[in-house]
Amino acid sequence: MDMPANALHSMTRLRALLGEGYDLDMVRSLLQWDQATYMPDGGADARGRQLALIGRLTHERTTDPEIGRLLDVLEPQAAKLPHDSDDAALIRLTRRLYDRATRVPAAFVAEMLEHCSTTYQAWVTARPANDFATLRPMLERTVELSRRYADFFPGHASPADPLIDQSDHGMTVASIRPLFGALRANLVPLAAAITARPTPDDRILQHSAPAEDQLGFGLEVIRRFGYDFTRGRQDLTHHPFMTKFSLGDVRITTRTREHDLVDALFSTMHEAGHAMYEQGIRADFEGTPLANGTSSGVHESQSRTWENLVGRSRPFWEHFYPRFQQAFQVMAKVPLADFYRAINRVSRSLVRIESDEVTYNLHVMIRFDLEVELLEGRLAVKDLPEAWHARYQSDLGLRAPDDRDGVLQDVHWYSGPVGGAFQGYTLGNILGAQFFRAALRARPAIPQEIAAGRFDMLHGWLREQVYQHGSKFTPDELVRRVTGGPMSIEPYLDYLWEKYAPLYGLRADERAPVVVA
Amino acid sequence: MDMPANALHSMTRLRALLGEGYDLDMVRSLLQWDQATYMPDGGADARGRQLALIGRLTHERTTDPEIGRLLDVLEPQAAKLPHDSDDAALIRLTRRLYDRATRVPAAFVAEMLEHCSTTYQAWVTARPANDFATLRPMLERTVELSRRYADFFPGHASPADPLIDQSDHGMTVASIRPLFGALRANLVPLAAAITARPTPDDRILQHSAPAEDQLGFGLEVIRRFGYDFTRGRQDLTHHPFMTKFSLGDVRITTRTREHDLVDALFSTMHEAGHAMYEQGIRADFEGTPLANGTSSGVHESQSRTWENLVGRSRPFWEHFYPRFQQAFQVMAKVPLADFYRAINRVSRSLVRIESDEVTYNLHVMIRFDLEVELLEGRLAVKDLPEAWHARYQSDLGLRAPDDRDGVLQDVHWYSGPVGGAFQGYTLGNILGAQFFRAALRARPAIPQEIAAGRFDMLHGWLREQVYQHGSKFTPDELVRRVTGGPMSIEPYLDYLWEKYAPLYGLRADERAPVVVA
Repeated sequence: MDMPANALHSMTRLRALLGEGYDLDMVRSLLQWDQATYMPDGGADARGRQLALIGRLTHERTTDPEIGRLLDVLEPQAAKLPHDSDDAALIRLTRRLYDRATRVPAAFVAEMLEHCSTTYQAWVTARPANDFATLRPMLERTVELSRRYADFFPGHASPADPLIDQSDHGMTVASIRPLFGALRANLVPLAAAITARPTPDDRILQHSAPAEDQLGFGLEVIRRFGYDFTRGRQDLTHHPFMTKFSLGDVRITTRTREHDLVDALFSTMHEAGHAMYEQGIRADFEGTPLANGTSSGVHESQSRTWENLVGRSRPFWEHFYPRFQQAFQVMAKVPLADFYRAINRVSRSLVRIESDEVTYNLHVMIRFDLEVELLEGRLAVKDLPEAWHARYQSDLGLRAPDDRDGVLQDVHWYSGPVGGAFQGYTLGNILGAQFFRAALRARPAIPQEIAAGRFDMLHGWLREQVYQHGSKFTPDELVRRVTGGPMSIEPYLDYLWEKYAPLYGLRADERAPVVVA
Repeated sequence: MDMPANALHSMTRLRALLGEGYDLDMVRSLLQWDQATYMPDGGADARGRQLALIGRLTHERTTDPEIGRLLDVLEPQAAKLPHDSDDAALIRLTRRLYDRATRVPAAFVAEMLEHCSTTYQAWVTARPANDFATLRPMLERTVELSRRYADFFPGHASPADPLIDQSDHGMTVASIRPLFGALRANLVPLAAAITARPTPDDRILQHSAPAEDQLGFGLEVIRRFGYDFTRGRQDLTHHPFMTKFSLGDVRITTRTREHDLVDALFSTMHEAGHAMYEQGIRADFEGTPLANGTSSGVHESQSRTWENLVGRSRPFWEHFYPRFQQAFQVMAKVPLADFYRAINRVSRSLVRIESDEVTYNLHVMIRFDLEVELLEGRLAVKDLPEAWHARYQSDLGLRAPDDRDGVLQDVHWYSGPVGGAFQGYTLGNILGAQFFRAALRARPAIPQEIAAGRFDMLHGWLREQVYQHGSKFTPDELVRRVTGGPMSIEPYLDYLWEKYAPLYGLRADERAPVVVA
């Protein structure tokens, strides 16, 4: 950094302080990873206490008034640097995070963390028991805590906005609504046209296979994708996730299902997508807030890219299907075309994480709308189970037989605040297609390469364009740099149409016009 | 606690402060456990940094001047309580730990932790490569750091004393030397008499078995011992250890060997012994320094009890040998007597952890003497490999072909300070036999119970007499309470003679007279 000596000194000091907050956050992630993978039941109480303690210490570090004083010294210097200077980006990001963190008292953070840890433990047993009654008072408190969180940010249009901003900086309820509205206007007729056609048979996927074979195939695939096992590993859990203990240790988790040959595989691809984003961040960002994916939406764009745009694509399976048939003998006589139709089967279903590319966003938008209503006080927690059923009825024409696959189905509301947790999934679908279109434009041979079982061209382009930058650019800046324009739903709708129209024999006149809000 | 209100308030505050130090220490243990079990190579640098940070924070907590002020308030109150009151014990222990911790600057602690983490990572690859040259400068720095540590405790007779006191409170080089001297005076002739007899054939144990079968048998045994899997688990590592993240989460690790049917089994019993001690501590001690084993020697007494006094005993195998033969078909035709002789084979060997009950202590005493010489400046690190070989030549009549099984063999000097790391093993052998004699006196049916595959009587007695108390009593207090007298080598020597004289056909006149120092 081209700065006077005292500013250089301040920069060094700032990096040291940020490094401690970063490492404490990584330690917290390890405590959570262990809780979700290996921890015996007897460890739960102490773990909640330890998470609360580390959470409090992290908050103390990230709100240290010395950071504020250093920023005051450094900002005038950073203003003289080019906008895309690393140091300028670090100062801007640190200011944003510091201002956000200092608004929230440490005691509140600890209260929230402890409450979430308790609620998560309760959810683990309450969901299989279909027991919303036990969780209801906890969820009421979560909503209340989430509102109190929002209150620390006066001036917001919706109490959901500060929570959305936390995961998808720059977005608000007001900016998401028209985007989701336009998307829904296209997806609803698309889903209707598809589900009016005969449903492909996916019973061919419903076979038992030893867990180690399922896992083995997935590990081989993500190794080929470029997931770096010297800087990561995979373990088993109930609800798969990616986590990071440093840029050199980015782990994924998965689970196997007994009567499903591909569920673990697609989950593995999904988490590997998240992990490759983190593994691709510039090593010199380590220990700073730049060493994180820039938003939940951009993160999800990468998990969905590797799971869907690559992993459910025809070129991918042209290469991998013979190996898959070898690994799972029961598939020996099933033609590739049938398999490809089965893994891309579109159907109205009750469970988000089992849903297909076309209806997935309908699940997400239901959750987004409900959490905004909860936060804005237009929906009470006691009425949530029924509101859930009503929305599934109206949007997907289905009603879950219980709360297990209703309001208890996702971990999010039971492990963190209510608000800001879901929009990223759909933003990710939109951005994934947008980035992928840019990649194909830059390197048109990508599909041929994938059909040869190689992914260097795509992975290299994504690393270069997206991954390496971590949080250096805001989501909006990144999208404009990579695609030349703002976020747009058009590439995603084009992608869906081009993939699913031939699969289901849709006619061109059945396509709804893309109305961009 | 029967105290005035302000003292009660101080006690509550003290417990809160101690709880944070305790939890940070548990978090540190998790970081280390992960490092030794699952962490990919790429995580090493950041892990060293994170361990140093948590170590520093722990040190800040345990040296918080507020603890000193609270102790000043509470000590006069505690003095009025009976000596064996829990609160009085907590105050005494906290004072000892606080005074010890406040002598050592935080920056030194961080330096030591980071150095040890780096050295450990280097040892992991240097040992198989027989590469002492790489480790030598690191070990030189470890010795220097260990001496600097001792310098924070002026007035010691040997720089090893403060390090010994840390793990075996109350012991010094001066008090250990005569004890070890008397032990050696008995063990050397015993080993000589035994190894003059024909060596039992232990090739019957050198067979391959699937890792899962080896692990399965060990897990079944320790479940029967009473190791509680709802408050623990076992994972794989290179160098087995026990660790704890709370009294509700006490884990063990092991490793399997390809051509050895019992190595993993005895290692599992050993670590389970450590773990059952910790699992047996009173739950209401959680979050305080009372919730730890009281010394390295007492800890080791329990691992050695379950591994040797139980696990290598005739009654144990009378019950378990038929199951062992079922699990490992290759043993089907081997009589119990031969198996029993094989697992109790005494031979001069090069590797401590593979050595037998009789020669084990000779290995330990070599290390103890060498580390004292290193610390007292009578031996340079550059001369250590040769000094090691010379001592093995003189004490065991053997010379390792390389440093891998010489000076590189144990992790201790490469993962912590030099000094205080080894005496506990031999103190443990001594104390294990002493406690076991007391147990047999109180409950003479223990051997019959073991021969029936049950361990409740022994486990219950040890929980009652030893485990539950954690660190409430000093090692010396505990030994006197449990056995009615001070530490004594007699029960151990009696145990060895009574077991090995019949096994090897030794005559009564071959026994050296027990000379207690």
